[in-house]
Amino acid sequence: MTTASTLEDYSRLCVHTITTKAWSIEEAMDRYVAAGIGGITVWQDALKQRKASLIGEQLRARDLSIVSLCRGGFFPAKSAQERQQSINDNRRSIELAAELGAPSVVLVCGAVPGQSLDTSRQQISEGIAAILPDAEAAGIRLSIEPLHPMYADDRSAINSMAQANQLCDQFDHPLLGIAVDVYHLWWDDQLEQQIQIAAKKQRLFAFHICDWMTPTTDLLNDRGLMGEGCIPVKTIRNYMETNGFNGFNEVEIFSNRWWQANPEHFLQQIQQSYLKHS
Amino acid sequence: MTTASTLEDYSRLCVHTITTKAWSIEEAMDRYVAAGIGGITVWQDALKQRKASLIGEQLRARDLSIVSLCRGGFFPAKSAQERQQSINDNRRSIELAAELGAPSVVLVCGAVPGQSLDTSRQQISEGIAAILPDAEAAGIRLSIEPLHPMYADDRSAINSMAQANQLCDQFDHPLLGIAVDVYHLWWDDQLEQQIQIAAKKQRLFAFHICDWMTPTTDLLNDRGLMGEGCIPVKTIRNYMETNGFNGFNEVEIFSNRWWQANPEHFLQQIQQSYLKHS
Repeated sequence: MTTASTLEDYSRLCVHTITTKAWSIEEAMDRYVAAGIGGITVWQDALKQRKASLIGEQLRARDLSIVSLCRGGFFPAKSAQERQQSINDNRRSIELAAELGAPSVVLVCGAVPGQSLDTSRQQISEGIAAILPDAEAAGIRLSIEPLHPMYADDRSAINSMAQANQLCDQFDHPLLGIAVDVYHLWWDDQLEQQIQIAAKKQRLFAFHICDWMTPTTDLLNDRGLMGEGCIPVKTIRNYMETNGFNGFNEVEIFSNRWWQANPEHFLQQIQQSYLKHS
Repeated sequence: MTTASTLEDYSRLCVHTITTKAWSIEEAMDRYVAAGIGGITVWQDALKQRKASLIGEQLRARDLSIVSLCRGGFFPAKSAQERQQSINDNRRSIELAAELGAPSVVLVCGAVPGQSLDTSRQQISEGIAAILPDAEAAGIRLSIEPLHPMYADDRSAINSMAQANQLCDQFDHPLLGIAVDVYHLWWDDQLEQQIQIAAKKQRLFAFHICDWMTPTTDLLNDRGLMGEGCIPVKTIRNYMETNGFNGFNEVEIFSNRWWQANPEHFLQQIQQSYLKHS
């Protein structure tokens, strides 16, 4: 097996707007460009009270690659009416991605506490079936992001690469693929094998990086910088790249600790940790 | 498939001493017996400054079944010296179980942050190989407890029934089996199938119950009473019992919230929730 490339610059570094959420998207884009960062993934909240097409123009004018729009999904719900509302919301997300000029929408698939995971998976499948024609019409890719099992209660019933691959198998559609996030998947002994399967089927759409802190003090917002925790980020990037992935390495860090720091300092730390530990 | 029995009394209810940790073991045993509870699983801290054989006599005098001693394990470590220390500690746990009259020791297998999970699994296997002769000599069963993937950083590199079955396969020893805890395993789509495999090989040694709260505010100590959360406890008990398990249903709840309540009230709530939601 060959090994992944050494990262020597920031051309394949992408930062999620939520990572530096203290900054408006206008400030974030200028800061990222000034730092030599190649890509940005835009969270929907960053577009509030803005025209997505205009933000897209501003990003392209700065040669900042728009990697994804985050995030759609959350298909399961108790009532048919709520599920239809979710489908409508996802259609709007696809339109928004098209307006922005983002090639893909990341899907956090959803789950309902107390509803069986099998039922939620069925509803996720139905939701994706409903929006795939919209994705086709807009030419937007949908990236299923499997979430860590600790989010199986209310965030996603898709908790492994194997389940994401099974879901993709139901459609076998070139616009439906997978966003691999090391935070959610590092513990899985099937990860390398399932990345190989996804690669063969042209489904490796995105790669998210951060780290797992010991101890983790908050289930949502205590992620670490690469190198601060126990995730073998380089090893997993190696799985991706030796299987043909050559897209961006997207830094997606939710951290109350880092969000309290000066965002400029945080971005510098991201860049250092990116070269050293990713 | 037949369905599991309806629970109509507390004869198969077992409470872990840590669940009611405000009580000394002497108080706990009297409270459990007065409540009609059939079993107790003893945590090592409850035996501090006590003679285990004497506690065992007191439990037997009250007809309280001693289900397990919690807990051994934690085999992985960076240095050979630390790993040997862990083996020594586990040998002492086996002796303690024998003194107490507990038929089994629960193993939380361990992990080292930053060490690969494969390496930790190898060290776990070596640790078990080292202590199995001691377990044989004492006639004590060892119950591997797979832990939720959110504990893969520093508590256990065994995070699914499939991995626990693989570990047992390495030894195929009648004294090595599995403790199934719904909190750790409820999300796994292979759970029923892997319980069947374990049952065929006579490995279903223990069954722990509680619930998963939404939201969960603490990774360690925010477990719920059965029925407070989203785990299908009855469904999983059904998997166990239709595959031949007829042991105790052990309530193991770590909860800062419940530990602040009056322990007598907490025990009553456990009993109600046991009949209604287990």
